Amino acid sequence: MIGARPGADNRAMSAAPLRNDVFLRACLRQPTDYTPLWLMRQAGRYLPEYRATRERAGSFMGLATNPTFATEVTLQPLERYALDAAILFSDILTVPDAMGLGLSFEAGEGPRFERPLRDEAAIRALQVPDLARLRYVFDAVAMIRKALDGRVPLIGFAGSPWTLACYMVEGAGSDDYRHVKTLMYARPELLHQILTINAAAVAAYLNAQIDAGAQAVMVFDSWGGVLAHDCFARFSLDYTRRVMDLLTRERDGRAVPRIVFTKGGGPWLEAIAACGADVVGLDWTVPLRTARARMDDRVALQGNLDPAVLFAAPEVVAAQARAVIDDFGAQRRSDGRWGGHVFNLGHGISQHTPPDHVHALVEAVHGHSRRVLSASP
Amino acid sequence: MIGARPGADNRAMSAAPLRNDVFLRACLRQPTDYTPLWLMRQAGRYLPEYRATRERAGSFMGLATNPTFATEVTLQPLERYALDAAILFSDILTVPDAMGLGLSFEAGEGPRFERPLRDEAAIRALQVPDLARLRYVFDAVAMIRKALDGRVPLIGFAGSPWTLACYMVEGAGSDDYRHVKTLMYARPELLHQILTINAAAVAAYLNAQIDAGAQAVMVFDSWGGVLAHDCFARFSLDYTRRVMDLLTRERDGRAVPRIVFTKGGGPWLEAIAACGADVVGLDWTVPLRTARARMDDRVALQGNLDPAVLFAAPEVVAAQARAVIDDFGAQRRSDGRWGGHVFNLGHGISQHTPPDHVHALVEAVHGHSRRVLSASP
Repeated sequence: MIGARPGADNRAMSAAPLRNDVFLRACLRQPTDYTPLWLMRQAGRYLPEYRATRERAGSFMGLATNPTFATEVTLQPLERYALDAAILFSDILTVPDAMGLGLSFEAGEGPRFERPLRDEAAIRALQVPDLARLRYVFDAVAMIRKALDGRVPLIGFAGSPWTLACYMVEGAGSDDYRHVKTLMYARPELLHQILTINAAAVAAYLNAQIDAGAQAVMVFDSWGGVLAHDCFARFSLDYTRRVMDLLTRERDGRAVPRIVFTKGGGPWLEAIAACGADVVGLDWTVPLRTARARMDDRVALQGNLDPAVLFAAPEVVAAQARAVIDDFGAQRRSDGRWGGHVFNLGHGISQHTPPDHVHALVEAVHGHSRRVLSASP
Repeated sequence: MIGARPGADNRAMSAAPLRNDVFLRACLRQPTDYTPLWLMRQAGRYLPEYRATRERAGSFMGLATNPTFATEVTLQPLERYALDAAILFSDILTVPDAMGLGLSFEAGEGPRFERPLRDEAAIRALQVPDLARLRYVFDAVAMIRKALDGRVPLIGFAGSPWTLACYMVEGAGSDDYRHVKTLMYARPELLHQILTINAAAVAAYLNAQIDAGAQAVMVFDSWGGVLAHDCFARFSLDYTRRVMDLLTRERDGRAVPRIVFTKGGGPWLEAIAACGADVVGLDWTVPLRTARARMDDRVALQGNLDPAVLFAAPEVVAAQARAVIDDFGAQRRSDGRWGGHVFNLGHGISQHTPPDHVHALVEAVHGHSRRVLSASP
């Protein structure tokens, strides 16, 4: 597999030294002067410049599959805001699309697969895709990395095996996960078959992103939270752990941090903290202080402001951002270890967010965390 | 307010002695011979006889506002299954409808309010509704109670103040709660105004249901789980507690148990257990064993099978139901106190459930819990 990685030949282009490594340091629980931040879906519809590029691209897939457009929109939020990381503009469903399920995005409808996995034959035929079919993603990673020119690190990402399976079996978004849960309860061995393929595919996909220049990687388990407590470990976390085990740990002499985000994962934080990730992403339902205590700083935390806060006035945004920093508490523990906090929202930024409010957020996070850190011993 | 309760004059009709009080006993953590069960949304679209009545009624509102139809569908699941409680057939949005917001249900669209609360003037004008406008509900309660003739107890219900506020401000279901959360972060005093009115209205509404014959009441906080951790207590639980404080405790010499169900409430179980409810409903994300330990049996628990289990074969349904019973563990604690478990799903039963599978569930819950209880000292 290594020899066939389509990202490998792009690597030489992206060797500019990194000028802001605060995000990477926080991921690895190393001391920083302030709390770094980036925002899930930071390149997105709330930005007029994104909507303009999207219009030129003609469609969401036209945007996501064209490395030039993907590079353009990935960099847009960095032009406006002092964010500490860029994240590849792409979609978690590129992998099942490369498996042949036929992805499309209908206007206002969300993603849809033409050929969802609805019978045993289709499931048995599923294979890890030829990564050459995802070359547009690795080309985008290399081009973004070059365009960033060492400004901030680039995060690559993928959906978790379970979350991909949800879409692959349902064929689209769902509010009851009826088909995939029926499979889970009635024919668990078939779901395990899908998840095994997905885990191998996701690991290969992320490793190829790392080869192409991604300096950290994130697994989105967007639908882990819909599982019953006794199913989450078996059908989601076990396969995320398998991905973690297979990932490239270091590139160009530098660790490549691994982030895992389970929306609704609050009940299972102890287990998630032990899956092999360096960073655990949190939605807004659990206080950072509680999460930190439950995981005893064995991982860094990413989160966890409610994105709806950004609808309020800038002074409210700033106050709520400061509260998140204060909730995390002292970065340096009494035993000398470092906590590790990457500020983020608890979910993607809403398309209805006024772009100006994001300025207030960035200033509050950087300013307040700098003050807190310089005041602490 | 007491003199004006429209339910009061219906009470005399419904005096048949209760023949099955297992549900009420479990709610109050009193010894029982088996674990009682009922199912959220047990009178619903998965039953062909429900769909037939719904067709005759012409519309959902036609069904919900006609006491004869409401009685008919409330009793339908009891004809099929040995359930231990009936629950009033109605909708949580009857209260805001009575406040003048103009409720309708469009086919396949869910509920919609014609006049959502979108400006300060509308919020300031909001009042506790005249309960006479909800007389059809109290008439249904009295009629159902009479039709039950002491077979099993009747549960009345309402939405929580926060959950009602979500619908009242959004005007319909939502996936981001943008309007109500904007209000919460930007103008919290206006949201508190709505919640204060809602709490008074919900308490009066439930007390009138108790007057009309409801033998237990349940508050559905269906959207509590979308709140950030520091908002849940202030904007949801504080107002649920206010409702609990105002409820009639006893009727005809018998306690009227209070059930509170917060979907997604797993992170806050300790706080929910202290809100004044006798029973806390749980979704499927938290093991009963863990929930019980966290709440130290200060309340009974209701739940928590994933409704999707019912899509699998009857033997799978039975095995999963037994696992829930076993997860709760010994009803009798070492200190002699009683745990209190009401079996239920962690959410409403799906319209796609094969009705036959529910038989397997009922048999497994009753049979297995009877065996476990008779085997324990």
